[in-house]
Amino acid sequence: MSLLPFEELEAGELMQRRIFALRQDRVKSQRTGRETHVDRLFCPDWVNVVAFTAADELLLVRQWRFGSAEFSIEIPAGAVEPGEDPVVGGLRELAEETGYTPDDPGAVVLLGATRPNAAFMNNRCSTIFVPRVSKTLPQNLDPTEEVEVLSVPRAELDALMRQGARRCAAGAAPTATDGLLDNSLVLVALHLWKLHTA
Amino acid sequence: MSLLPFEELEAGELMQRRIFALRQDRVKSQRTGRETHVDRLFCPDWVNVVAFTAADELLLVRQWRFGSAEFSIEIPAGAVEPGEDPVVGGLRELAEETGYTPDDPGAVVLLGATRPNAAFMNNRCSTIFVPRVSKTLPQNLDPTEEVEVLSVPRAELDALMRQGARRCAAGAAPTATDGLLDNSLVLVALHLWKLHTA
Repeated sequence: MSLLPFEELEAGELMQRRIFALRQDRVKSQRTGRETHVDRLFCPDWVNVVAFTAADELLLVRQWRFGSAEFSIEIPAGAVEPGEDPVVGGLRELAEETGYTPDDPGAVVLLGATRPNAAFMNNRCSTIFVPRVSKTLPQNLDPTEEVEVLSVPRAELDALMRQGARRCAAGAAPTATDGLLDNSLVLVALHLWKLHTA
Repeated sequence: MSLLPFEELEAGELMQRRIFALRQDRVKSQRTGRETHVDRLFCPDWVNVVAFTAADELLLVRQWRFGSAEFSIEIPAGAVEPGEDPVVGGLRELAEETGYTPDDPGAVVLLGATRPNAAFMNNRCSTIFVPRVSKTLPQNLDPTEEVEVLSVPRAELDALMRQGARRCAAGAAPTATDGLLDNSLVLVALHLWKLHTA
């Protein structure tokens, strides 16, 4: 099969929501001539932060997530402002969510980016690696954000991911202030970090 | 900070789209009493398939993606039917997209599941591992699907992921029938596979 890009015939009405915009477009296969409708979600680019404390523990945040309606354990992350460098955006999100800043700003590395979901989302998610961070600032959260900062030894990360994947598959909702390390973008970030440090 | 689940005050109108439904809900912090609106996307559960050929090559699919408006190199994947076992759903998607089936159905492993995006999506994505597959059937695609099957030696996977993350970060759109291995859920699946085989 010789693949060809689909042709965009018609853009639907853009519905603006709080954290994304939604549009249904009409597209046409250049191979078969067949037309179809596709859902597209327009999101800002995001950034993930892999940061280790002086005790060599990965910095994590626990928060209630509205999609899963569960608590979730993740790495600091957020949206990149339009035109903002992902490294700058990542360090901004890190400081806001946790109060931690890099010991050596020159040591921060952009590990790369991935598509959160190429099937229907247009954005990219970058991952940055901050080898050493310290608590130098107070948290600076939005009025509706509630974020608990924690950290876990580097040697326990694989076990935490295995546990998250197993319990997420079992469908057991975490209770109380529990939470799983089972957000896909965290597993992506830690994979990119392993590929970098391997 | 002692975290508490947010309370759901009011569910908005459900807007049904082709591959998901969208709703804006009103929620309330039990800690501060503050109310806010949240976007929620209701999606079917998904499944990812990590499968190796007799030549020990990872089975991949290349297709045009409407979200990124680019070609993308991914592993076979799709939506799980309501009530369907993720292993059954994964093998169904594998057969439909590629015509490959497991040499030993008893050797198929559910590696776990993750949240594609806990922040605003309600679903889970499982990953299954099929140690050995062979081409036994023709492709069986939807009329609007155009999928090219390829495979890559196991030893080249890390390089392909590094290249994808670097080029995705650089923002260079792949041209023609090119495509990057840069879809987050593929990096998740290969991370879970590494955690399993480590």
